[in-house]
Amino acid sequence: MLGELLNTPDLSALSQWLADTPVHEVAGELTRLDGAEQATVFRLLSREQALAVFEMLDPPVQQAVLDGLRDDRHRELIEDMEPDDRARLLSELPATVATRALAGLSEAERLKTAALLGYPEQSAGRLMSPEFVSLRSSITVAAALAKVRAEGADAETVYLLPVTDEQRRLIGVVSLRQLVLADPTASIGSLMSTTVLSVSAYDDQEDAARLLAASEVLAVPVLDREERIVGIITVDDAMTVLEEEETEDQALHGATQPLGRPYLTASVLAVARSRALWLLVLIAAAALTVNVLQAFESTLEAVVTLALFIPLLIDTGGNAGSQAATVVIRAMAVGDVRFGDLPRVVWREARVGVLLGAMLAAIGFIPIALLFEPRMGVVVSVSILAICSVATVAGSTLPMLARRLGIDPAVMSAPLITTLVDASGLVVYFLVARAVLGL
Amino acid sequence: MLGELLNTPDLSALSQWLADTPVHEVAGELTRLDGAEQATVFRLLSREQALAVFEMLDPPVQQAVLDGLRDDRHRELIEDMEPDDRARLLSELPATVATRALAGLSEAERLKTAALLGYPEQSAGRLMSPEFVSLRSSITVAAALAKVRAEGADAETVYLLPVTDEQRRLIGVVSLRQLVLADPTASIGSLMSTTVLSVSAYDDQEDAARLLAASEVLAVPVLDREERIVGIITVDDAMTVLEEEETEDQALHGATQPLGRPYLTASVLAVARSRALWLLVLIAAAALTVNVLQAFESTLEAVVTLALFIPLLIDTGGNAGSQAATVVIRAMAVGDVRFGDLPRVVWREARVGVLLGAMLAAIGFIPIALLFEPRMGVVVSVSILAICSVATVAGSTLPMLARRLGIDPAVMSAPLITTLVDASGLVVYFLVARAVLGL
Repeated sequence: MLGELLNTPDLSALSQWLADTPVHEVAGELTRLDGAEQATVFRLLSREQALAVFEMLDPPVQQAVLDGLRDDRHRELIEDMEPDDRARLLSELPATVATRALAGLSEAERLKTAALLGYPEQSAGRLMSPEFVSLRSSITVAAALAKVRAEGADAETVYLLPVTDEQRRLIGVVSLRQLVLADPTASIGSLMSTTVLSVSAYDDQEDAARLLAASEVLAVPVLDREERIVGIITVDDAMTVLEEEETEDQALHGATQPLGRPYLTASVLAVARSRALWLLVLIAAAALTVNVLQAFESTLEAVVTLALFIPLLIDTGGNAGSQAATVVIRAMAVGDVRFGDLPRVVWREARVGVLLGAMLAAIGFIPIALLFEPRMGVVVSVSILAICSVATVAGSTLPMLARRLGIDPAVMSAPLITTLVDASGLVVYFLVARAVLGL
Repeated sequence: MLGELLNTPDLSALSQWLADTPVHEVAGELTRLDGAEQATVFRLLSREQALAVFEMLDPPVQQAVLDGLRDDRHRELIEDMEPDDRARLLSELPATVATRALAGLSEAERLKTAALLGYPEQSAGRLMSPEFVSLRSSITVAAALAKVRAEGADAETVYLLPVTDEQRRLIGVVSLRQLVLADPTASIGSLMSTTVLSVSAYDDQEDAARLLAASEVLAVPVLDREERIVGIITVDDAMTVLEEEETEDQALHGATQPLGRPYLTASVLAVARSRALWLLVLIAAAALTVNVLQAFESTLEAVVTLALFIPLLIDTGGNAGSQAATVVIRAMAVGDVRFGDLPRVVWREARVGVLLGAMLAAIGFIPIALLFEPRMGVVVSVSILAICSVATVAGSTLPMLARRLGIDPAVMSAPLITTLVDASGLVVYFLVARAVLGL
C-alpha cells in the first residue's frame, strides 16, 4: 500500500493516506520500506505523528530511520521521545552514536534517560516511565484531581496514581476512575487500595510484564532498593515486552537465535547466522547416532531390513518428545508448572508415553507383520513403545531441568529433544532386534 | 503454599493469607487444588473477593469450582460476573447446565448474556463488554464527567468513552484523561479524536486482540453490522485472548492439540488424546520413508555404511526446516510477513539454506573422509547441501501456503515439516550415493 503510493509522482495521495491511517499501521508499513523511502515518509509526517510512528518501531528500524533524517529532525525526534522508549533505543545504538545523541538532549531529558540507563539491561527499570503523578494520602479527592490536571499532561499514564509517604515510599494506589467517581471531599487515604502490586526496578522485564498480564491491571509501580517509587510500567509496554519474549521463546524453541528485528528487514547473512550455531550443535549431537549405528553395523549387515525403519522410529520418538517439551515449556511460562512438580510431571508423562506408544505399536504391528514378517512387527512395535515412553519423559524433564539450572527452558527445542532421543532410540531398537531376531 | 495452609486445622492462617494475597495469585494457587479444597477456599472468601478470583480462572476450572458450591452461592457467583466473562463460561458448560444457569439469572443480566451469546464463538462480540459509557458530541466536558459519575460504576472501563450520533453510530472517542485535563466548558465534539479504531462484533477475537496490542490503546469499540456501537473490548481481555492463542499456537507448533486447561488439571487420558491424532498423522507420513528406503534396499545392501548417516541427514534436514518454519510462522503472526511476500521469502530462504548447507558440508567432509573414505565424505556433504536448501524452502513455504488455504500456519509444526522433508532428503541421499559410488 505505502510502497505503491511512494511510487506515484504526486505525493498528495500519500499525505492523505498518512493523515487517515492509524499510526500503528503506518509503522507496520514503514518496516517494509528501504531507508530512503522511510525518510521520504517521515518528511511528510507532522512532528507529533512522526513521534507516534517512530515510538512504535523496533530499535533497529528506528536506527535506520534516524540515519536517513537531517540532523535537526534527528535531534528533535530523540528529544520528543518518552524517556523509556529513548532509553531502549539508545541502549541498542552503537556507543558513539548513543553518546552523541545523549549529548544533543536538553538537560531535563538527558537526566531522565541517564537514570533509566543506570538500571541493568532487560530490567524493569529500563522499561518504566519516570513520568507519573503521585499523591499524598492526606489530601482530598478534589486536590488530587487538581494535581492530575496540573501534572498529568506529561505523565505516561494518569489512570493509576501511586500514593506515597514523606520518604516517597509507596503506601497505596488509587485509580483515576475512583477519583472521578468519589466524593470530592473524601481523603485519598480513605480511598486508596493498600494491597498494592509493585515490582523492583531490578526485576526482569518479562517477570514484570507477566505480573501485569496475570493481574489484569493497567499499570504497576516500580520501586528502588529503598522501596521508593521511581517509575511506573504501563500495560502497553508490558504487551510489547511479552510479544518480544514470545518471539524469542518461539525462536529458541525452533532452535534459532532471535533476529531482534522484523524478518524481512534482516539480511540473508544475519538470518543464516542466527541459525548456524544451533545447526552445528545439533549436527554434533546427531554425530552420536553415527557411532551408535556403527556399533550395531554387524547386526545391520545381517538384516538390512532393519535400516528401513530407522527414520520412522526416530521421527516418532522425536515427535513424542517434542510434544511433551512444548506442553511443559508453555505450562512453565504461564506458571501452571513449577520445578517442585517434577515428580508429578514425570509420572504423568511416563503414563502418557506408554499409552501413546501402545497405541502406535498396536496400529503398526499388523502392516509390518504382513508386509515384512511377524518378528519384524514385534521388533518395531516393542521399540516404538519403549521409545515413546523414553521420549515423553525426556521431553518433559529436560526443559524443567534447564529452568532449574537457570537456562531458558525454550532452548530445549523440538530439534534438540529430537536429536537427543534419537541416539537412545536407536540403541533400544537394535537391542530389541538382537533379542527378538536372535542375532 | 495454599495447599499447606489447607492442611492446618486452624483456618485463620488461611483466611489471613487470602486477605493479604493479590487475587491473581489466589487464582493461580487455586488451580493446583482438587475440587473439595477449592470449595473450602471459596467459602472463606468474601463475595467480592470470590468474584474477582473466580473471573480469573479458566472455564474448566470455574466449572469444577461451581460443582463444589451450594446452589445459592453458585447462582450468586454467576449473577455477579461481568457479562463477557459469564458468556465465556456458559458457552463452555454442558448445554443443560448452561440453560439452568441462564434461567437462574435476573432478567437484566440474562438479556445482556443472551445478546453476547448471539455472536459466533471466538468472535469479538463474545469478548466485548456491553457495559460502557457513551457520550454525545454536543455536550460539554463537565456534562460528560457528570455522566461518567452517574453511569461509571457498572461500566467495564471509563477510560475510553465512545462518542455516538443519534443512531448510536460511533463518530469518535475521548479518553477520561482528556476529559479530566480539558476545560470543563469545552464541547466533546471539539475534543474527540475521529481517527477511531474499531472492530466488528463478527471479527475474530484474535484479530481484535492483536489490534489492541499493535495500536497500544486501552480499549476498542465494537460495532454491529449497522455500524452501531454494541460493546467495548478492554486490554485485559485482549491479553487473556493473546495468551490463550499463544498457548494454542505453541501446542499446534509442537504437534499437539491445545488442552484448553492448565496442564496439571488435565487427566493423563486427556493429555494422551491431545497428542494421539498428530502422532498418528506423523507416523503415517513417516511410513513414506520406509517405502523410499525399500526402493533403495539394493543400494543399502551393497554399502551398509550408507545406513549409518541416515539419522544424521534427516535430523539436519528436519532441523533446518523447522528453523525456517518457526521464523516464518512468527513473522506472519505479528504481521511482518504476508502471503504476497512469498517470492521474497522463498528467495531469501533458498540462499539461507545454501549458506547453512555449505557450512555444514564443509565441516562434515573432513571427519567423514578420514574415518570412512573420501567418496563417502563427498556423498554426505553433497546431500547435506541439497537437503538444507530443500528444507529451508519447504519449511518457509508450507506455513505460508497453509495460511493461504485458511489453515492455521502453526499446524505446519516442526514435527510435520521434519517428517515431510525426511522422505525427500532420503531420495536425494541415495541418488547422490548411487552417482558418486557408481552403484
